[in-house]
Amino acid sequence: MKKDGVTLLRRPRLPRGFRASGTACGLKRRGRSRSRPLDLAVVVSERRAATAAVFTTNRFAAAPVVVSREHLGRSIGLIRGIVVNSGCANAATGRDGERRARTVAARGARLLACRPEEILVASTGVIGRPLPHRRILAALPHAVRGASSDGIADAARAIMTTDRRPKIRCAEAAVGGTTVTVSGFAKGSGMIHPRLATMLAFILTDASVHPYLLERLLRDAVRDTFNAISVDGDSSTNDAVVLMASGAAGGRVLLQAGRREAPFVRALRAVCRALALDIVTDGEGARRVMEIEVRGAPSGVAADRVARSIANSPLVKTALGGGDPNWGRILSAAGAAGVAFAPGRVSLRIGGVPVVRGGHGVVNGHDLRPLFMARRVSVRLDLASGPGRAVLWTCDLTRRYVDINAGYTT
Amino acid sequence: MKKDGVTLLRRPRLPRGFRASGTACGLKRRGRSRSRPLDLAVVVSERRAATAAVFTTNRFAAAPVVVSREHLGRSIGLIRGIVVNSGCANAATGRDGERRARTVAARGARLLACRPEEILVASTGVIGRPLPHRRILAALPHAVRGASSDGIADAARAIMTTDRRPKIRCAEAAVGGTTVTVSGFAKGSGMIHPRLATMLAFILTDASVHPYLLERLLRDAVRDTFNAISVDGDSSTNDAVVLMASGAAGGRVLLQAGRREAPFVRALRAVCRALALDIVTDGEGARRVMEIEVRGAPSGVAADRVARSIANSPLVKTALGGGDPNWGRILSAAGAAGVAFAPGRVSLRIGGVPVVRGGHGVVNGHDLRPLFMARRVSVRLDLASGPGRAVLWTCDLTRRYVDINAGYTT
Repeated sequence: MKKDGVTLLRRPRLPRGFRASGTACGLKRRGRSRSRPLDLAVVVSERRAATAAVFTTNRFAAAPVVVSREHLGRSIGLIRGIVVNSGCANAATGRDGERRARTVAARGARLLACRPEEILVASTGVIGRPLPHRRILAALPHAVRGASSDGIADAARAIMTTDRRPKIRCAEAAVGGTTVTVSGFAKGSGMIHPRLATMLAFILTDASVHPYLLERLLRDAVRDTFNAISVDGDSSTNDAVVLMASGAAGGRVLLQAGRREAPFVRALRAVCRALALDIVTDGEGARRVMEIEVRGAPSGVAADRVARSIANSPLVKTALGGGDPNWGRILSAAGAAGVAFAPGRVSLRIGGVPVVRGGHGVVNGHDLRPLFMARRVSVRLDLASGPGRAVLWTCDLTRRYVDINAGYTT
Repeated sequence: MKKDGVTLLRRPRLPRGFRASGTACGLKRRGRSRSRPLDLAVVVSERRAATAAVFTTNRFAAAPVVVSREHLGRSIGLIRGIVVNSGCANAATGRDGERRARTVAARGARLLACRPEEILVASTGVIGRPLPHRRILAALPHAVRGASSDGIADAARAIMTTDRRPKIRCAEAAVGGTTVTVSGFAKGSGMIHPRLATMLAFILTDASVHPYLLERLLRDAVRDTFNAISVDGDSSTNDAVVLMASGAAGGRVLLQAGRREAPFVRALRAVCRALALDIVTDGEGARRVMEIEVRGAPSGVAADRVARSIANSPLVKTALGGGDPNWGRILSAAGAAGVAFAPGRVSLRIGGVPVVRGGHGVVNGHDLRPLFMARRVSVRLDLASGPGRAVLWTCDLTRRYVDINAGYTT
């Protein structure tokens, strides 16, 4: 699939300069197959890679977030590797949790013969339990040795929690005669809310990008992709999106987001967007995705607030789950967003069909049920009160979400 | 039960000066019993009663809210009656919806021989459908004639939607030698969120209260009671809390909230609080209630934000539903509230048991499951960052909530 100079790749692969692995170190309980599930992922860059990251805004930032933030600062964004575990979030674990995260990073550094601050750590799983870091330390030599250029599939599996599917997306772009690859893998499922980086995602590229530009491009891409999805409105303590650029593709260093660099920027956004949609599509218990476009808000921020109010409404989400065309709940959620607009000017389209015009229903017996039974439902709300626009994606709220989350720790 | 000069009454009754009725006018579909369910409630005050009300802040305020707000203004808060229907919200129905609401009020006025602005109207049910007002007009004469001093139980039934139980609470207080009664009935169940008046509640008293004081007392009482509960974080288009004082008990007019008036204020709060707890206890699909007390926030507003973030977290609510003591989700929801505090100073108690101290878990194998299996779970979060305090009540999120809301209109 090629678009705007960007080719989305069917077969996942790592960009040049990276190796990865996924191994089992005993943090996750054995599944039905009695085999040990993968729960430790390692990403290694052959050389120090220019790296940018965005982290959760949750006040209870987990230990690995605290440590990774510090390491990024001390290494001025030049990173050799990432160690990620699932099965335990290492959050709300105090000083001892931080010490354990540091020990993991230090061991990774020793294995890669680099400084500890050149290693990032990330964790996902239950909050409030001590990280069984000795199991990670014991498995790490094998995990680092086993890291290979075709390890992305195992790494993507190893970071899963309640995800049903691993999430990997790759794209290629030509930048001034050099072909660069952007590959990402992510985990999502629960505690997904678009307040900042809202899950774990690791994006790797062999493009050569100046750290300053890398940071900017990542923030821009995250805003419209990972920050534009919502599963349940809960902002996790461990969210992180990391972007590493090895520069192994060669070619000139990208310094600005100009015309020459545009295909790379598009490839990055395409990967982020595809991963974000993978996450919301695979939201806990989800069967349907709703794309919510709000136009005509007083400002972009206002549009975003209205879209989020709809995306996080349990009533909208249960109606979506039931395939029930209860569009009144969409209006009600919009009206409760705390944004000023004239209700009498509002119009709403669902799947292209006008449902509300001038603030009141114009359905006239049109059967909306098929529109709500689709795998992807598009909702377009026009407030006719300004230039603000926002697009968000949300999934339905089902019995399965309740079942999954009623007994996650136990 | 007597407390602070206030007696909570077991047997519901209307205060002097009021009559009420509940009748069936054909707005709700017949149930399994094939009998027509009650769906039209009327409250009549023999004389004009001093009346205060708080309404939804939703931008899509329903037609009856628009009309009632206007009537309260034009009658300077002197009201003769209220006409309430369930089965149709008359929201997102435009000018035509307002016309229908006005027609209902006008017919009520004719039957009571008063001016139209002395009648309030309220509706609850599905949003976006035209109000079948002719059915209400046809049934209204019978409903008004049938209004009696023991009609509160029928009226409470007639305003129910997905409520499992009618909600009626009565209290008596002695005010300077005069015994006054405060009686309220309410409906709740879904679309309950503490942003303002969050459902329909009608509170009647035979005390004689100056309209200015009445307004203030209602706002104060609503803040800590109806505004302190959450079922699903959705603010409805139709919310209204109305307080009518007939003065039929005799005695001096209450002008200020001093010592003499204190028992009345307490009786009012007791009724509001009991009805609010009835609503959250009977939340759609709910089996458990969580009382969330946040202390030590930088301010009262900040405490409220943190408490609301916990109360509306689907992950906290599903854990509560599953009786799963996943306290990490409570911390995570608190941390995501956008309030500044030092995580390292936070402590958390559940059912009196210390779970977190200094920002990290101190459970040490204590079995928290029984605490989460209780009908009422008390959570106390101390942020140790200021004087702000707030108390909120929320219910669990269960499969049944999903089932109820996946097909409400269809």
